[in-house]
Amino acid sequence: MQQYMQQAIQLAKSASSTGVNPRVGAVIVKDGRVVGFGAHLKAGEAHAEVHAIRMAGAAAYGATMYVTLEPCSHHGKTPPCADLVVESGIKRIVIAMSDPNPLVAGQGIARLKAAGIEVEVGLLEREARALNVAFLRSLETRRPYVVLKTATSLDGKVALDTGDSKWVTGTEARRDVHELRSTVDAILTGVGTVLADDPALTVRLDRETTQPLRVVLDRELRTPLSSQLVRTANDVPVLLYTTSDDRVKRDAFTQRGVELADYTSLDAVLQDVYARGIGRLLVEAGPTLVTSLLDGQFVDEWVMYQSPRVFGGKGGFYRSHHDGPLDAIERYDVQAVETVGTDIKLIMRKGESDVHGNR
Amino acid sequence: MQQYMQQAIQLAKSASSTGVNPRVGAVIVKDGRVVGFGAHLKAGEAHAEVHAIRMAGAAAYGATMYVTLEPCSHHGKTPPCADLVVESGIKRIVIAMSDPNPLVAGQGIARLKAAGIEVEVGLLEREARALNVAFLRSLETRRPYVVLKTATSLDGKVALDTGDSKWVTGTEARRDVHELRSTVDAILTGVGTVLADDPALTVRLDRETTQPLRVVLDRELRTPLSSQLVRTANDVPVLLYTTSDDRVKRDAFTQRGVELADYTSLDAVLQDVYARGIGRLLVEAGPTLVTSLLDGQFVDEWVMYQSPRVFGGKGGFYRSHHDGPLDAIERYDVQAVETVGTDIKLIMRKGESDVHGNR
Repeated sequence: MQQYMQQAIQLAKSASSTGVNPRVGAVIVKDGRVVGFGAHLKAGEAHAEVHAIRMAGAAAYGATMYVTLEPCSHHGKTPPCADLVVESGIKRIVIAMSDPNPLVAGQGIARLKAAGIEVEVGLLEREARALNVAFLRSLETRRPYVVLKTATSLDGKVALDTGDSKWVTGTEARRDVHELRSTVDAILTGVGTVLADDPALTVRLDRETTQPLRVVLDRELRTPLSSQLVRTANDVPVLLYTTSDDRVKRDAFTQRGVELADYTSLDAVLQDVYARGIGRLLVEAGPTLVTSLLDGQFVDEWVMYQSPRVFGGKGGFYRSHHDGPLDAIERYDVQAVETVGTDIKLIMRKGESDVHGNR
Repeated sequence: MQQYMQQAIQLAKSASSTGVNPRVGAVIVKDGRVVGFGAHLKAGEAHAEVHAIRMAGAAAYGATMYVTLEPCSHHGKTPPCADLVVESGIKRIVIAMSDPNPLVAGQGIARLKAAGIEVEVGLLEREARALNVAFLRSLETRRPYVVLKTATSLDGKVALDTGDSKWVTGTEARRDVHELRSTVDAILTGVGTVLADDPALTVRLDRETTQPLRVVLDRELRTPLSSQLVRTANDVPVLLYTTSDDRVKRDAFTQRGVELADYTSLDAVLQDVYARGIGRLLVEAGPTLVTSLLDGQFVDEWVMYQSPRVFGGKGGFYRSHHDGPLDAIERYDVQAVETVGTDIKLIMRKGESDVHGNR
C-alpha cells in the first residue's frame, strides 16, 4: 500500500542527510492500522526498524512492515535489523530499495526470505533514492558529498584589483553560510585562505549546533600557529593534510591539538576524510582549490552567492581553462534560485548525466 | 474611495509600459455605481479619460472621476483631457499623482479647479508611480529606460578563449530574449557585435509582433553592406550613429534604407533616440558598449541570463575597473530570480538610491 511507504518516506525526512548514514523510515501495519513507526535519526543510534518494532510490541506479530531501505544484515554500531524483524514475527515486508552498501547488498533481503518472510522490493523506489542522494553518491565514489560554497560578484570576482574583498555579500547571506555549515560534517579549505582571511570556520548561530571538523590542505605547513584555526583546535578539531616531514613544525601543530595527515592528492584526501566518517563536506576556499575541485568534477552541489554588482578588474576567481567545444563543458542542474537579503543564492547539483559517469 | 482608484490602476496595467507614454486608467462613479472606465493603451490613441467619459455619456454629469495621472492640458497627439473633463460636467476628480511632464505639470489641475471642479490629489500615489517607473525615469533623464540583456557563464564569460561562443544559453532562454525584444521600442548594439555575430535583432516569435527599431553605434561605418541589418533595413528600420563624413559610404547606407545620425557621445545618442520617441531601449551588445553603459550608470534594468557552467579562460566580459572601496560599487536591486530551461534568469533594477541621484 503506497500510503504507508509514503508515510515511511516522510518519517525518514525528519532526519538530516549527512552522507555516511542513510535516512530511513519504517511503518508497521496490522489489520489496516498503523501499530508502529520509526526513523533513523543519527549515526550510531537505533535504526528505523528498531524504533518501529519496539513501538508495535506484540502487535508486530503477523504484521506488515514498510521500510524505505533494505534492513541491514551485519553488525555495525547496532545489531542487524533483519534478525530483529524475523524475531518480531513480522509476516511481510515491503522495501522501497535494496541497500547498495556492499556490507548489506541483498543479504538483508536473503536473511528475511530464508526466515519465510514475504518480501516485496521497489515500491516508491525513486522517492526513496531521492532521500539519500548524498549517501548513495558517497557509497559509489567513496568520497564525501562535496558542497562548494562561493560568494562572488556578477562577473565572478571575489575582490577588486586593489585587494578589497570585505564584504562581497551582505549580512543575511553571511548568516546563511553559517546555516549551511551547520548541515555538514566537515569544512575544507586551503592554506591560501587561512593566510589571507584567517577564518574560524565555525558555526556561529543563535542556537546550539554541532561544530564540523575543520580540514586544511597545507602541504608545506604554512598555517600560522597564531591562526584562529590552530588557536581553537582543542575546542573544535582541525585536521591538516601536509607533505612536510619537518619534525619540529609537525610537533608544534600536534602539541596544539591539530591532527596531521599525509597529503598525496585531492582525490586521496577526499577518500581519507570519507573513511574518517565525513559524509558531507563543505568547501570554502580560494581559487586554486576551488578550480581543482571543479576541474576534477568533485563538486556534487554548488551553493553560489552572488552580489548584484560588477567588480570588474583583471583576475577571475575560476582558473579553469577549456579548449572547447562549449557543449563539452560540465553543466550544473539548477535546483533553486532565490534572494537572500540583497544577494542572489543559487543551489546547483552535478548534472544528472555526470552522476554515474566515469571520472 | 480607494477601491475605485485601485480599479483605475488595474485598468492602467492592461497597457504595456513603453516609457514615452504613461500607463493611465480612469473610472467614473455616480451614486456609488461605476458608469464609465477607460485606459490609455497606445501612443497616439485616445487617453483613459476620453474612453471613460465616452462610456459614461450623460451619466458623467455630476459624477466623480478617479484617474491615475493628472489629465493633460496641452494639445499633443490628442486634445487636452482637462477640457473634456470640464465639458463632461464631472463635479469632482480624484487624481493619484500630478504629471511631472513639464508640458502638464499642474496646469491640468489648475484648469480643472478654474472650472469649479473639486480636485483631490495623492490617493494611492505610490501605486500609481509604480505603474510608470520607466516613463517617470525617462521624463527626468530625457533618455529611454535602458534594459541591458546579457548572457554569460557563471564566471561572467561569453566565450571560451578559443572563441567558441555558440551557444552560451539554451533554446528556452534564447526564445525568452525574443519575448524581451517584443517589449521594447528599439534595440541598441555596437558595430563590434555586428561584425562578430551578424545579428538580425528582430523579434522572431510564433505570433504577430511589432519590430523594434534597430540602432547601431558605428563611428567609422564598418557595418558590412552585406550584413543582415543592412539587407533588411527596408523592412525593419535601422538607425546608425556615426562620425564618418565619407560621402560614398554614407550614400551606400542611405540608399539601402539605413538612416544615419551623428555620433557625439553615448549620452547624446540616448537623448537623441528618446527624442525620436524611443521610451524603452534594449541593449544587446559586446563588452565595450556594455561596460560603457554600466560604468556610465545608464542601465535602468538588467536582464541577465546565466548558463550554469564555468567557462574559465582569460578575458572577462565586463571591462570595468574600480579603485574601491567595495561599498562604493553600484548594487542592483534584484527583482526576480528564476530558471528558464536549464539556465538562470535574473532581473535587476538600478538601485533605488541611484534613481534620483546625480550622474
